[in-house]
Amino acid sequence: MRYFENIEIGREERAGPHHVSQTEIIDFARTWDPYPYHVDPVAALNTPFGGLAASGAHTIAIYYRLLYELSRKQRDPLVAIAALGFELRLPFPVRPGDQLTLATQPIEKRDSKSHPDAGVARTRGVLTNQDGRVVLELTAAYLFAKRPT
Amino acid sequence: MRYFENIEIGREERAGPHHVSQTEIIDFARTWDPYPYHVDPVAALNTPFGGLAASGAHTIAIYYRLLYELSRKQRDPLVAIAALGFELRLPFPVRPGDQLTLATQPIEKRDSKSHPDAGVARTRGVLTNQDGRVVLELTAAYLFAKRPT
Repeated sequence: MRYFENIEIGREERAGPHHVSQTEIIDFARTWDPYPYHVDPVAALNTPFGGLAASGAHTIAIYYRLLYELSRKQRDPLVAIAALGFELRLPFPVRPGDQLTLATQPIEKRDSKSHPDAGVARTRGVLTNQDGRVVLELTAAYLFAKRPT
Repeated sequence: MRYFENIEIGREERAGPHHVSQTEIIDFARTWDPYPYHVDPVAALNTPFGGLAASGAHTIAIYYRLLYELSRKQRDPLVAIAALGFELRLPFPVRPGDQLTLATQPIEKRDSKSHPDAGVARTRGVLTNQDGRVVLELTAAYLFAKRPT
């Protein structure tokens, strides 16, 4: 088992790439966010996006998928007790044909005030496209169990 | 057209409910977040969730869907120029059979420092289940165009 004590600030882990097809963008958005610029490549040309772009919810779902794949690569993944909160930015649109890569690292850790047997760690995760543009940036605070004494 | 000037602090708008079936939870998570507690009702019993729970990405997708439905009810929706950032909490799990309702309201507005022809508004959106438990809380900052002078 790995615990709060095992978290190494700055230790980067990577997963991906995830290939984003036009079909995937349209299928996702038809169910969850069916604006023209997410579901109709022709209508999207005359919107501020200037062409088809993935729903923000889709970009977030890809982030979850790559986090899952990251955890599958770890023999002994560190499992949080609870997610405390997220700060999220979607600074650049995801387009058909994009190859998205996840990089994540712990950026801060401290004892929990309310849970003496746990600690709070903040991790920063970034999804980057094939041109190095950041399409999603997420900072998450999680509660992790400390090693039993 | 509606502009930054039309935003009324505290004016609540609602959409939903969205009915969350077990099939929807499993189908979403199989693609995007296939942990046992999101895809396997039996295996989920022996996890901290104590039963099947929706992926956080799924809860976020439902939020986007209800935001879309809200905009469809408005004859003249206010369209943001850009989303600046989000703060997100997922304080309570979404379960099979849940009925989720969206409530959203502007909570703050101010002039933009960098864009004299635009303003920044922060909105708070909450997804609540049939028992009144908040399952998602999101504060978003958007840039809106001001009325042309």
